[in-house]
Amino acid sequence: MLKYVTTGESHGQHMAAILEGFPSGLKMDMEYINSELRRRQGGYGRGGRQKIETDTVNLMGGVIKGLSTGAPLGFLLTNADFKIESMPELFRPRPGHADLNGALKYAQGIRPILERASARETVMRVAVGAVCKLFLKQFGIEVASHVIRIGKAALPNDAEPTVDQIREKTKNSEVNCICPDTEKKMIAEVDEARRQKNTAGGKFEVRVSGVPIGLGSFVHFERKLDGQLAMIMMSMQSIKAVEIGSGTLVGEVFGSEAHDEIFHDPKKGYYHKTNRCGGIEGGMSNGSDIVVRATMKPISTLGQPLASVNMQTKQAERAEYERSDICAVPAGAVIGESLVAYIIAGSFLEKFGGDSISEIRRNYEGYLKQISA
Amino acid sequence: MLKYVTTGESHGQHMAAILEGFPSGLKMDMEYINSELRRRQGGYGRGGRQKIETDTVNLMGGVIKGLSTGAPLGFLLTNADFKIESMPELFRPRPGHADLNGALKYAQGIRPILERASARETVMRVAVGAVCKLFLKQFGIEVASHVIRIGKAALPNDAEPTVDQIREKTKNSEVNCICPDTEKKMIAEVDEARRQKNTAGGKFEVRVSGVPIGLGSFVHFERKLDGQLAMIMMSMQSIKAVEIGSGTLVGEVFGSEAHDEIFHDPKKGYYHKTNRCGGIEGGMSNGSDIVVRATMKPISTLGQPLASVNMQTKQAERAEYERSDICAVPAGAVIGESLVAYIIAGSFLEKFGGDSISEIRRNYEGYLKQISA
Amino acid sequence: MLKYVTTGESHGQHMAAILEGFPSGLKMDMEYINSELRRRQGGYGRGGRQKIETDTVNLMGGVIKGLSTGAPLGFLLTNADFKIESMPELFRPRPGHADLNGALKYAQGIRPILERASARETVMRVAVGAVCKLFLKQFGIEVASHVIRIGKAALPNDAEPTVDQIREKTKNSEVNCICPDTEKKMIAEVDEARRQKNTAGGKFEVRVSGVPIGLGSFVHFERKLDGQLAMIMMSMQSIKAVEIGSGTLVGEVFGSEAHDEIFHDPKKGYYHKTNRCGGIEGGMSNGSDIVVRATMKPISTLGQPLASVNMQTKQAERAEYERSDICAVPAGAVIGESLVAYIIAGSFLEKFGGDSISEIRRNYEGYLKQISA
Amino acid sequence: MLKYVTTGESHGQHMAAILEGFPSGLKMDMEYINSELRRRQGGYGRGGRQKIETDTVNLMGGVIKGLSTGAPLGFLLTNADFKIESMPELFRPRPGHADLNGALKYAQGIRPILERASARETVMRVAVGAVCKLFLKQFGIEVASHVIRIGKAALPNDAEPTVDQIREKTKNSEVNCICPDTEKKMIAEVDEARRQKNTAGGKFEVRVSGVPIGLGSFVHFERKLDGQLAMIMMSMQSIKAVEIGSGTLVGEVFGSEAHDEIFHDPKKGYYHKTNRCGGIEGGMSNGSDIVVRATMKPISTLGQPLASVNMQTKQAERAEYERSDICAVPAGAVIGESLVAYIIAGSFLEKFGGDSISEIRRNYEGYLKQISA
Repeated sequence: MLKYVTTGESHGQHMAAILEGFPSGLKMDMEYINSELRRRQGGYGRGGRQKIETDTVNLMGGVIKGLSTGAPLGFLLTNADFKIESMPELFRPRPGHADLNGALKYAQGIRPILERASARETVMRVAVGAVCKLFLKQFGIEVASHVIRIGKAALPNDAEPTVDQIREKTKNSEVNCICPDTEKKMIAEVDEARRQKNTAGGKFEVRVSGVPIGLGSFVHFERKLDGQLAMIMMSMQSIKAVEIGSGTLVGEVFGSEAHDEIFHDPKKGYYHKTNRCGGIEGGMSNGSDIVVRATMKPISTLGQPLASVNMQTKQAERAEYERSDICAVPAGAVIGESLVAYIIAGSFLEKFGGDSISEIRRNYEGYLKQISA
Repeated sequence: MLKYVTTGESHGQHMAAILEGFPSGLKMDMEYINSELRRRQGGYGRGGRQKIETDTVNLMGGVIKGLSTGAPLGFLLTNADFKIESMPELFRPRPGHADLNGALKYAQGIRPILERASARETVMRVAVGAVCKLFLKQFGIEVASHVIRIGKAALPNDAEPTVDQIREKTKNSEVNCICPDTEKKMIAEVDEARRQKNTAGGKFEVRVSGVPIGLGSFVHFERKLDGQLAMIMMSMQSIKAVEIGSGTLVGEVFGSEAHDEIFHDPKKGYYHKTNRCGGIEGGMSNGSDIVVRATMKPISTLGQPLASVNMQTKQAERAEYERSDICAVPAGAVIGESLVAYIIAGSFLEKFGGDSISEIRRNYEGYLKQISA
Repeated sequence: MLKYVTTGESHGQHMAAILEGFPSGLKMDMEYINSELRRRQGGYGRGGRQKIETDTVNLMGGVIKGLSTGAPLGFLLTNADFKIESMPELFRPRPGHADLNGALKYAQGIRPILERASARETVMRVAVGAVCKLFLKQFGIEVASHVIRIGKAALPNDAEPTVDQIREKTKNSEVNCICPDTEKKMIAEVDEARRQKNTAGGKFEVRVSGVPIGLGSFVHFERKLDGQLAMIMMSMQSIKAVEIGSGTLVGEVFGSEAHDEIFHDPKKGYYHKTNRCGGIEGGMSNGSDIVVRATMKPISTLGQPLASVNMQTKQAERAEYERSDICAVPAGAVIGESLVAYIIAGSFLEKFGGDSISEIRRNYEGYLKQISA
Repeated sequence: MLKYVTTGESHGQHMAAILEGFPSGLKMDMEYINSELRRRQGGYGRGGRQKIETDTVNLMGGVIKGLSTGAPLGFLLTNADFKIESMPELFRPRPGHADLNGALKYAQGIRPILERASARETVMRVAVGAVCKLFLKQFGIEVASHVIRIGKAALPNDAEPTVDQIREKTKNSEVNCICPDTEKKMIAEVDEARRQKNTAGGKFEVRVSGVPIGLGSFVHFERKLDGQLAMIMMSMQSIKAVEIGSGTLVGEVFGSEAHDEIFHDPKKGYYHKTNRCGGIEGGMSNGSDIVVRATMKPISTLGQPLASVNMQTKQAERAEYERSDICAVPAGAVIGESLVAYIIAGSFLEKFGGDSISEIRRNYEGYLKQISA
């Protein structure tokens, strides 16, 4: 029921998004939304574009006198670096980008492809995700992210910070990392990549606390919460792997070390002492933190361009180079938070129905009583 | 446009599926479809159920005189082990299963949950996938799978077999593995798990050859081919990680080692010498083999049950035990093939439109000429 | 969220349907469902097929020990008149049927087209609708239908029977009409059509009582309840017009005679004394009965066939004749009830969310209190 | 695959729409699009708002150097009458509007409801429809509309103008009517309504020429072209009835007068001499003009307000009055054109697939050859 669509090109005049299916009665906090956009702009290793832009969205609809109305929310952003009509056509597709297959598929040059395929579009995803986070906050659900790998520099696998710890520990990190030692190594990786006119990828983790038992479902494949999370994460530019909980590691151990035993306490109800499953069993949330990890490939635009072909002459040439980042994993984590928030908010609305925050709250509280009975 | 839905419970009388949006004019090969179901039943480490069942589907609709008509295809299977109405209620949820959160969510006992959450449902997904494979074969697209890890036993990461090699080399493997040495280690893992009354997970790879450039799209997140593949794979029971191409490894290297350089040859057109991207760049197929890897957790039902809670008394007890497999990764690979085939067939139909095989073929050939011009 | 798909051909072995998104905890009343199928088989003017069949569905899934589980519901029916593989190909398309354009579109003969386009498929829609009615009954929502026109014989426009009156007065009517005088004229129309080797159409009305204020929405076109009702009704075989409330007549009067004034009573809350809007204002239910009228064209298969063309020779010939009804408006009304029930149930679930009947009831009752506050 | 969503309120700063699934390679004619917006603003009987606004949309995305790129198209409009934050709250809901049920459903006041429920939103639907018409024009498909009734003044039922005749004859009509005599009567109806401080509704017809045989399908209810047309038309503000072809009249005659006989000519292929079915048989286009009629109720805001209730005091009072039209049927026809164009364009894209205009053209031409073979 919650659905968004975006429009706009990297160097177009505007980027915009419409989010449909959002309930009435939420206090819209534009400052928060725009602070999220700024978070996305940061991170060690970003390129020149972020110096030009100060991303800010305005509302096109769905909010009157500071409250959401139930109507579709519209977000509008104006690009400072608006020059799309004067940018040159390109002929030497960049390996790793949509350039070559996009140009062939759409029977166009490379320019229209890269303008839309660009991760600049994620600014609108972050705006949408920020509203979803505002919604989730109403129900005590919090989303945070941190970078767990840049190139060879990685956090140990057994780090299991809470959402609060992530927020606290990444506050002053240039790479959105919870460990100062690892941060240094990550920055060194970015520096080394820059020195080589190369680029660096990595991995980030998104963690959600406060999710009630029972979002998503096993009854049909399209309703599985993990399937939806995998879709949204893999749909993000540069992502090549998505893991829930222990992820790829869970294939290496036996069942007795792979699952999360069940306990009960009169006060907290059913609970688990471990969270190998990343908060999802049988396609449903199980009350533990939801943990999603995503691997980003290195940026596809290299200062030292890779082998390519001139599409006009069919001659071997080096790929095009356009201003780009060296590493965008810290920004990727922020985007990932937004995507996860969107999916969780959508499945929350599906489970609890309701047109207004007050109605949803009533339904939600009734359910909490039901399952603790 | 291509959509399926399934119905039926593990020990119900029937399992069924309806596949909507399938074109007319395909010769329906029921023997092939049922041979795929048999492939799913096999694999070292399966439990007692597979000895009871000889899975066979019949058509409920969509085919007349051996040809698909464009109407929804219906598949019907009758379970030999039909006893759902007499099966006992359960009270001690199994960690890793949908038992606990499902029972709370749906305000029911555990029995109705596990009957639907069971991977028995994948028999219908394989039937649907088999028809999709028949469709893809019309256009020279072939799908194969092999097991690359069971527990600690893994194939080296750099094995890049072709679809033909996979088919040839797994033909006589009990675990759907291309390497006899690794196979032995995999079987030893299963044996060790059985000895411990434990279970084993692992990893498999699905590979698709013959996919044209340009399926999927970057223009909107829901159209990304990798996003759709991630969704369908993660929606499969027990999957905890999905990787495209180099997957998690691509975060560890710099850009120069992460992307696939572009070449051109008058005869074969644009091509790549490497396939780190797993056949997908910018959310679109790029003409290389599509490579998807999925990690399965070990089966959640252990002979030596894990700690749980009796939902009636709230006392700590060991989890329920019901007949189950020790390892289902070889079967998982077959299911994974089916899921991937469904997504590729769907995106093929979206790109090429058409109501009949002959019309789709005409559109497809026109496109191949266009992109080679 | 509530979605169904059907499969099966008119003379195939099976017809089947899967209904996805149905909540747990509903007592499944198979006798009621099958009695609805029998209602669909009745009505003055039906052809020979209804003498051959005794339509009965069995469950394929979604119900255990008599209770819905939240899993997809599967319905299976076996056709007595199963002979699809031996039926002759046809070459002279019938005007009004899908024969000609279907055969051209799908690059097939006429047989596969008519087998699926046939209104025989509506038997599954009635099964789905019957379950939806069982669901709605839980919340005091009742659906009834009656025939208001067959050919020239029509009920006066100002008849506004309640759901109870419709049920009472049509009980013994052969044409599902509330007025014995009009019934006689309707039967005379059918007899006259039969005498002429012709066919008769007409009009029926579906009425729903007990619908709460606020199903559907104006915020986006896909959420409008009237739009959804129009879609589902027009998707029924032979329907050429759909009207809500006063329908086409509302264009002939001024605003003061077109709208329903608003009143308030401490006990019943807001109410209306008229119902020109058919229970829907601004795309939402307004608490009055929902009233939908649909016009059916006469059956397209005539005993005295119309001019056609032999598709093999391109010569002018008379259209094919296959066994058919003279008039199916009484059956159409039953089908229409089912379709309306499906839409109302779906929008009810969207508004109130919930996975189990008990949860939905709690949410629903909370809302009723909210709007009466 | 083609989908749009809109955002914005009647007196908000912006209205916007995003159209997703549009192919690359279409020359974007902004002058044409904006001329369509102006057509929507016209018509005898409009209120004061149209004197304030000069509706003009700008692009937010999807077009580079005048050509569509395949990316989502974004349209942005700035309201001259932007004053939403200072408009007074209202307490006396207008019968016929979304005011009462909307306020209850969304737990809000009336203002946020009417701002979104207002037909002002249709300005974006017309922008979307105009692009769809540009697309359809590429394939010789043309859409036109005319008003066939305002209040008691109606065009004779047997008028069957062609698209060209409609365009020619309505060119100078203030009410978008093809007949000068009827136009006079229509204008008199509007004048009489104004004199009475009342409002007038009516009926319009949308006609589409050049549609190939075989858009839409009978195989599943959601694919029926008539069902989709009914949905989109009924989703328009004020519409209470939708008819295809002869519509409600087809229920009054026998089959021999209800269907369209089939003929064949070596040059034009299969054709019909009548078009009672409105161009759709079996849920598919049949090659004749598509003819859709919609009935609009009179505007719900009356100068002489109807009985209502003050929602604060629950006392009987007259409904609110805000500036409004006397009659909007001529504008309604323009909106209806847009909605029909959107559905036809969408089903065209589903049938012919393709990412670029050139690819779609190739597929389309191949199909035309196929069906004429």
